[in-house]
Amino acid sequence: MENIEVKAYGTEAAEAPLKPLNIQRRELTSKDVEIDILFCGVCHSDLHTARNDWGGSMYPVVPGHEIVGRITKVGSDVSKFKVGDMAAVGCMVDSCQTCASCAQDLEQYCENGFTGTYNGMDRHTGGHTFGGYSEKVVVDEHFVLTVPENLDPAAAAPLLCAGITTWSPLRHWKVQEGSTIAVVGLGGLGHMAIKLAKALGAHVTLFSRSPEKEKDALELGADAVVISTDPIQMTSVNRKFDLIIDTVPYVHDLNLYIPSLNINGTLVLVGFLGNVDPLLNTVPLILGRKSVAGSLIGGIAETQEMLDFCGKHQIVSEIEMIKIQDINEAYERMLKSDVRYRFVIDMASLKS
Amino acid sequence: MENIEVKAYGTEAAEAPLKPLNIQRRELTSKDVEIDILFCGVCHSDLHTARNDWGGSMYPVVPGHEIVGRITKVGSDVSKFKVGDMAAVGCMVDSCQTCASCAQDLEQYCENGFTGTYNGMDRHTGGHTFGGYSEKVVVDEHFVLTVPENLDPAAAAPLLCAGITTWSPLRHWKVQEGSTIAVVGLGGLGHMAIKLAKALGAHVTLFSRSPEKEKDALELGADAVVISTDPIQMTSVNRKFDLIIDTVPYVHDLNLYIPSLNINGTLVLVGFLGNVDPLLNTVPLILGRKSVAGSLIGGIAETQEMLDFCGKHQIVSEIEMIKIQDINEAYERMLKSDVRYRFVIDMASLKS
Repeated sequence: MENIEVKAYGTEAAEAPLKPLNIQRRELTSKDVEIDILFCGVCHSDLHTARNDWGGSMYPVVPGHEIVGRITKVGSDVSKFKVGDMAAVGCMVDSCQTCASCAQDLEQYCENGFTGTYNGMDRHTGGHTFGGYSEKVVVDEHFVLTVPENLDPAAAAPLLCAGITTWSPLRHWKVQEGSTIAVVGLGGLGHMAIKLAKALGAHVTLFSRSPEKEKDALELGADAVVISTDPIQMTSVNRKFDLIIDTVPYVHDLNLYIPSLNINGTLVLVGFLGNVDPLLNTVPLILGRKSVAGSLIGGIAETQEMLDFCGKHQIVSEIEMIKIQDINEAYERMLKSDVRYRFVIDMASLKS
Repeated sequence: MENIEVKAYGTEAAEAPLKPLNIQRRELTSKDVEIDILFCGVCHSDLHTARNDWGGSMYPVVPGHEIVGRITKVGSDVSKFKVGDMAAVGCMVDSCQTCASCAQDLEQYCENGFTGTYNGMDRHTGGHTFGGYSEKVVVDEHFVLTVPENLDPAAAAPLLCAGITTWSPLRHWKVQEGSTIAVVGLGGLGHMAIKLAKALGAHVTLFSRSPEKEKDALELGADAVVISTDPIQMTSVNRKFDLIIDTVPYVHDLNLYIPSLNINGTLVLVGFLGNVDPLLNTVPLILGRKSVAGSLIGGIAETQEMLDFCGKHQIVSEIEMIKIQDINEAYERMLKSDVRYRFVIDMASLKS
């Protein structure tokens, strides 16, 4: 088997900026497809991994897990795709596919560990995986999604992480027509949560610390905005929400939001990995049978369900297109939340 | 309307021991029943309220919310009971009965606040309520339960708090034949959780810090005991439980138990009111879609369901019977966890 050398953009050290690199893609197995990458969304995790913020980064790091492109080759046993199809890859490119979680289409909770699209251990080559900031990617067809042809492929790219990460809890906690939900934080994830929840028929409120986000939130489909630093506004939504999707990626006080959960309500964390500080108080949890939960991306079948739903409802991300050469600047702007609402790399820039 | 004076046992100050008192019971409304109290269980909350541990105690405090007795009078509109029936009262004697929670038989989460059996605001008299350490109690029939005649009435008394507090989360989180659950702590609540979960068909594990509790736990019906201070034993139950019922009434590290939850699992706190210290880490919550929740007693309809289930399965509490005159000593022993597994007061001792 012969590897395929492709151009990429990545970094060789936590402190170094991203720059052009060449990486190897594996020769296709019978179940693999090769995708010519057209667009790749830029997720906060890309930056965290490039800079080793979470530890465990394997260099060179080539980030990118919101990948949309065209199928250019298919292995002999591939049944879902043919050359020319518009396809997508999200946060996972493999899993054990045999454990109880995988058997339930919950590959994101694979008991043996799913293979991340970047910085994962490649189950075929033994090396580590490289993400979508590259010309091509080779992936087992099970982990490749079909992108509805009516969606703008660039704006669809962020659905593969920001979309599914908010869709999965909306579905797991059974948000539907008439549900009353809130979203904490209006970024890449938060703006997708608003769009998806609204399309599911929910009444959607945005919690934000920034009054200037109100206009955007309403335009994105939110029914209301509550400024979380205003105690009077917070009291006005006491016991209102069946579900709160908390997208905030840094430490913050959860106790502030718990009173706004309805009886049996759940606050689900999708953005913050770390310790709940200040201390979480159990009293409002017990007095209202409320829950604090976490949720990680979503399964592959669920991701396809989300993409199909987005196709039907014409839902895509709000994006700002960049060239790959602008990625370091984009990271700096992302750190300042200066993006509405997702950077997407036009991968044609890598080839030029 | 003329009040009824009855003998009771209570305290006039946080620092004072319990002693004989006389209290007033309201004259029956058309919906009230009067119960001659035969037995009253002793709950940790009794002690906390007598001693004002949570603040807000109104003196004199007459504790007791695990009440079993015989109906001695019924109001003109009472339909559920007749004189001579064996009846019970738990933690609530009233609620608004009109809010969304009450309309769903979730009086324990009444939006306007349920009336506690003691130290609550009596919606009829405006005074505060007195509990079951007394000869008689007068209660709206909606909040009065029927006790299956085949159960030992003394041993049934703890079902009204310890029983329903563990039953409600078992039912809410759909524990059934084949469920795998764990109980943290083997006290009044924990031992009921084991019995009830086992009767529902679950595989039941006790988490305990005390190896000497193993024999009791297995006799009570547990399938396994895991010593929570032993890292090897803890690792052996990694990702095992659909539900953990945490009955520990003091601050403790929840992070210790989260890894033993299965994907989608919930740890539900029923005993600890306060701050989760040390800090709760979100990583295992997010990586397994796990939840930390709270649950408070149970609704009235659910309490009747639990009593009927206990009648069918011959389930009662393990008790140690005491005289009311021994209550102060019983409190001291309870503080040392020196009780297997619930003190119940033989209220005949109050009359003698």
